[in-house]
Amino acid sequence: MTAVELIEKKRDGQSLTANEIRWLIDSYTNGSVTDYQMAAMTMAVFLNGLSGEELAVWTDAMMHSGEVLNFDHINKRKVDKHSTGGVGDKVSIPLGPMVAACGVAIPMMSGRGLGHTGGTLDKLESIPGFTTGLDQGQFTAILERHGLVLAGQSKTLVPADRKLYALRDATGTVPSIPLIASSIMSKKLAEDLDGLVLDVKVGSGAFMKDIDAARTLAETMVGIGSAHGTSTVAYLTAMDEPLGLEVGNANEIAESISVLRGHGPADLTEVTMVLAAEMLVLGRIDDTIDAARNRLEEVVASGAALELFGQVIEAQGGNRNVIDDLSLLPIASHSFELKAQESGSVRRVNALAVGRAAMRLGAGRETKEDSIDAAVGITLHAKTGDQVEKGGRLAVLAFNDHDRVESALALLRNAWEIGDPVARSNLILDRIAS
Amino acid sequence: MTAVELIEKKRDGQSLTANEIRWLIDSYTNGSVTDYQMAAMTMAVFLNGLSGEELAVWTDAMMHSGEVLNFDHINKRKVDKHSTGGVGDKVSIPLGPMVAACGVAIPMMSGRGLGHTGGTLDKLESIPGFTTGLDQGQFTAILERHGLVLAGQSKTLVPADRKLYALRDATGTVPSIPLIASSIMSKKLAEDLDGLVLDVKVGSGAFMKDIDAARTLAETMVGIGSAHGTSTVAYLTAMDEPLGLEVGNANEIAESISVLRGHGPADLTEVTMVLAAEMLVLGRIDDTIDAARNRLEEVVASGAALELFGQVIEAQGGNRNVIDDLSLLPIASHSFELKAQESGSVRRVNALAVGRAAMRLGAGRETKEDSIDAAVGITLHAKTGDQVEKGGRLAVLAFNDHDRVESALALLRNAWEIGDPVARSNLILDRIAS
Repeated sequence: MTAVELIEKKRDGQSLTANEIRWLIDSYTNGSVTDYQMAAMTMAVFLNGLSGEELAVWTDAMMHSGEVLNFDHINKRKVDKHSTGGVGDKVSIPLGPMVAACGVAIPMMSGRGLGHTGGTLDKLESIPGFTTGLDQGQFTAILERHGLVLAGQSKTLVPADRKLYALRDATGTVPSIPLIASSIMSKKLAEDLDGLVLDVKVGSGAFMKDIDAARTLAETMVGIGSAHGTSTVAYLTAMDEPLGLEVGNANEIAESISVLRGHGPADLTEVTMVLAAEMLVLGRIDDTIDAARNRLEEVVASGAALELFGQVIEAQGGNRNVIDDLSLLPIASHSFELKAQESGSVRRVNALAVGRAAMRLGAGRETKEDSIDAAVGITLHAKTGDQVEKGGRLAVLAFNDHDRVESALALLRNAWEIGDPVARSNLILDRIAS
Repeated sequence: MTAVELIEKKRDGQSLTANEIRWLIDSYTNGSVTDYQMAAMTMAVFLNGLSGEELAVWTDAMMHSGEVLNFDHINKRKVDKHSTGGVGDKVSIPLGPMVAACGVAIPMMSGRGLGHTGGTLDKLESIPGFTTGLDQGQFTAILERHGLVLAGQSKTLVPADRKLYALRDATGTVPSIPLIASSIMSKKLAEDLDGLVLDVKVGSGAFMKDIDAARTLAETMVGIGSAHGTSTVAYLTAMDEPLGLEVGNANEIAESISVLRGHGPADLTEVTMVLAAEMLVLGRIDDTIDAARNRLEEVVASGAALELFGQVIEAQGGNRNVIDDLSLLPIASHSFELKAQESGSVRRVNALAVGRAAMRLGAGRETKEDSIDAAVGITLHAKTGDQVEKGGRLAVLAFNDHDRVESALALLRNAWEIGDPVARSNLILDRIAS
């Protein structure tokens, strides 16, 4: 078997066998298949696709390119949730404690933000002392004790994905559904899950702008999960405007805590509840979504979910007092009010513009090397369907560096479309299960 | 401009601008675009193609990646001939002296053989002392004096092609018509030609098995030549059985000399005459093909063509006496007669099998690192349309190493198809001009 033969097969639209795919991924991981050969292969995959069978093996081979976790000794169902990323999407943070408080174990490994979407790790690290870099012993111990751990991706998991993602980024093969799906699923399936809930964001602020492409990605990932024997359910959810009212890092932790207290914004609370309820069903805590929602409301009302969050913060080195005192979070030194230029109804808030503006303030990274400022961010005061008066507040920018405000404002000034009233569109667009 | 942007455009089926193509080829040549980026680009080109306009610029950019020759001081029209390669295809060797003897200058740069097709350089180097590695001063001086020089590709010409060809070979993007066409044409156009005749071989022994693909390649190359302002004519010629009776190196030189003496095999002589006559017309020596053929027959009959070959051999360090004494060429120590298993008419001689068998004897290279044995080869005694008797000779193998004979014979035993008489098929299949 040679790399050229496999490239030629895929180039000519043929299917690769399981042995061929495993050899390719292993050989690329150990370096005997070169970057330039894998670049030609990924372009052939981009243009000619992978069948469902090929993709299941491709993902499994990626997953087995490194260590695979094993939580058999933890006597709970293990279920995780993954989002394809959006602006203001802090769902994982309230969802984790709520679901864990109901008895499901969540070995959550998250990523950092890049571009206009924030990352769960960056948000969590705005909690003073909180560390996401855990070794495997720490990771397992926290999961076992609290049913929840919130960590970064272990370097020993799925090394093929780290290598392949960097290559795809440099060779124009990132937006390929099978390559995206196998990248996400290989990392999640390496967590030894019984169930997985996927949140595929759709809209101007999401990676997938188009619902058909998002549905194909969701179906592809659900197919991979099923082939692997992991119950997988995907939701398509709207990402045309930011989720919740806060976009940044510390302010998104504060908003997550408000959800855990039962008074978060309606859209953020609803997405969190829908995904969390599905996790309870996959975790066999409840048979129905309705029963699961009731249970989730109880652990919020009782304070059990918030208490569990405090315990996990403490276990990961953070100051657990933040759950009662938000002033312990970093606070920016300045603020600026963005005001409406006209009266009317908000027809649209451009999530992409808000996400980019937050990045300009320092809340996100333009390149992997950039550092972030946990204190800065944007608080929205008017979302779709809200009435605004001329001169009323649309948003407040929290910032530390005056030089960064103007370019953020340049993006924000056209982010609100104001005019005649428009109906709010649906938040939950579809549910896809095998 | 970034490599990723250009890869994405070609990936998505868009056209690249002239500036983009020139930047890409220049950046790849100087190393600022990486091999893995160019691998992704060539796979995108393989699958999505290049338009005629893109291809003209791509070829021109390749040609200008290194030195470009200039023969303005030589007061003759410069015309070359290129073949896509076949088994027993030694046409360049008799053609060069015939055309040069009529007054056209031929700055011929040839390649080495790889796989089942031989290379002109390897054949020429079987002449004792003959060197094909000339510096530019030697190359120009011999061309100026004799109107013919027979050399290897200069390392300073078209460095982009050397780099890109090695990459394509390792990444499954060799058989792409635009990439083949630009590779061939960039090297030929760098020779500062007024005219170019292309011999695109079609059939089982050729790179192009299929006449439609061969025609597309021919049309593509003629289009590139026209766009560059170089009169280009392509012939499609048959390569189902070997051309002539000799397959090897020294024995192909001997057969070339027999053509220059006017008694070469009919098929080899005909292809040589057709291509040579076209070169005389492109070289403005004659207005018509008929007049050109008469002139070519004269320079053969007078011995002028053979004499010119002797002069060029001497100028390139070889023993010119070979033209009168073939025993000066290397001779193999052993021979073996392959005999017919049945009586009948030869319906087909499989060129690919004969080419591979010659390679097994040591006449060709399986990998670039292999050395070749100039003395070994195969002489055919029965070709399509010939009658054979059971036990009669089909071929004679000349060899030096007994260990190599069996694997050659294994290929040859089924190479002759014997049965009811079949009409000889056409040798010249089509002529394509702009």
